[in-house]
Amino acid sequence: MKPLSLDKVYQLIEPGPVVLLTTAFGGKPNVMTMSWHMMMEFTPPRIGCIVSSADHSFTALSKTGECVIAIPSADLAEKVVAIGNCSGRDTDKFAEIGLTALPAEEVSAPLIGECFANLECRVVDRDFVERHNLFVLDVVRAWHDPKQVAPKTLHHKGYGTFSVDGEEITLASKMP
Amino acid sequence: MKPLSLDKVYQLIEPGPVVLLTTAFGGKPNVMTMSWHMMMEFTPPRIGCIVSSADHSFTALSKTGECVIAIPSADLAEKVVAIGNCSGRDTDKFAEIGLTALPAEEVSAPLIGECFANLECRVVDRDFVERHNLFVLDVVRAWHDPKQVAPKTLHHKGYGTFSVDGEEITLASKMP
Repeated sequence: MKPLSLDKVYQLIEPGPVVLLTTAFGGKPNVMTMSWHMMMEFTPPRIGCIVSSADHSFTALSKTGECVIAIPSADLAEKVVAIGNCSGRDTDKFAEIGLTALPAEEVSAPLIGECFANLECRVVDRDFVERHNLFVLDVVRAWHDPKQVAPKTLHHKGYGTFSVDGEEITLASKMP
Repeated sequence: MKPLSLDKVYQLIEPGPVVLLTTAFGGKPNVMTMSWHMMMEFTPPRIGCIVSSADHSFTALSKTGECVIAIPSADLAEKVVAIGNCSGRDTDKFAEIGLTALPAEEVSAPLIGECFANLECRVVDRDFVERHNLFVLDVVRAWHDPKQVAPKTLHHKGYGTFSVDGEEITLASKMP
C-alpha cells in the first residue's frame, strides 16, 4: 500500500448515483446536482444528504423543509453537468437546460419528467444542519418511469469524470 | 411517472461503492460490508456512515472510536458477500474468508491487503449515533495499492445484485 493524498479520498467514496435535488421557494423552482447522500433507514426510506450553505438550494430547502430527489440515467449526463455548472441565483435552470418540471403530490418542489425516478422528501431532522450541512430526509412518496427500462446511473469520480453502471452480477446474499 | 413502493427506494440511493469496514476490539479484528455512507467534507475528508446497533462492529466502533474503510474492487465480489453473510460474533472473518490484515499506522483496526484503497478513520462526532446510528469519521491516513490499476467498484442494488463500474465519461464540469 502507498500513501494516498487526503484530498483525493472523496473520489473513492462519493461514487453513489448522481442525483438531482429540486426545491421551490417563493414560486421559483430550482435544481442542483448532488452526490453526497446516503441511505439511513429502509422503510420509510430515510436519506441523509449534505447541501452546502453556499448552494442556492440551501435556503429553499431550509425554509420549506421539502425537496425532490430525482435520479437521472446516464443519458442525461450533459444536462446533469450543466445543472452543476450554473446557479439558481441567476439562472432558471429548468428553462435554460430543458428540464420538465412536473407537480409533486406531497411537496412544493417539482418532479423532473426526464428522470427515471423521483422521490418526494420532507426534512425530518435539522439538528446537524448547522454543524455539518446535513439534512435528514424522509421519502414520503416515490415515482418511477416504467418506460425507462434498466436505466444506468452515473457515479461521479471527481472533476467531471463519471463511471456509468456496467455489468450486473448477482450473488447469494443474506442482506436486503 | 408511476408510484414506486417506498421499500424499494434504498435500491436507488444506496449504490455508492460497497466498502468494507474493519475494527479491532479486545485484540480481535473484524470486518463488515457497508453501503450506507457519504462524503461530508473534502479535506480533511469527512465521511458519514450508518452502522446498525445490531451489527457486531457497532460495539467495537463505539468503544474504540477507530476503524478502517477498505475499498474492494469487483474482483472481490464473492468475498464481499461472504463478509456480509456471517457475523464476527462467531466467526474470525479474516481467517475464514481469506483476507490479509495489515497493520494501520494511526488506528488499531487493520488495513485489508486485498483492497485497492484503505482509509484509516477516527470517529469525530457521535451525537447522531443514538438517534440514527450515524458515525461521523475523519480520514486521518489513506493508502492505495498502485498495482491495482483502474479498479472497478461494486454498487449494491439490493439482495446481492451489484452493478460493476462500466464505461467512463468525462465532461467539462466546474465541480471538484
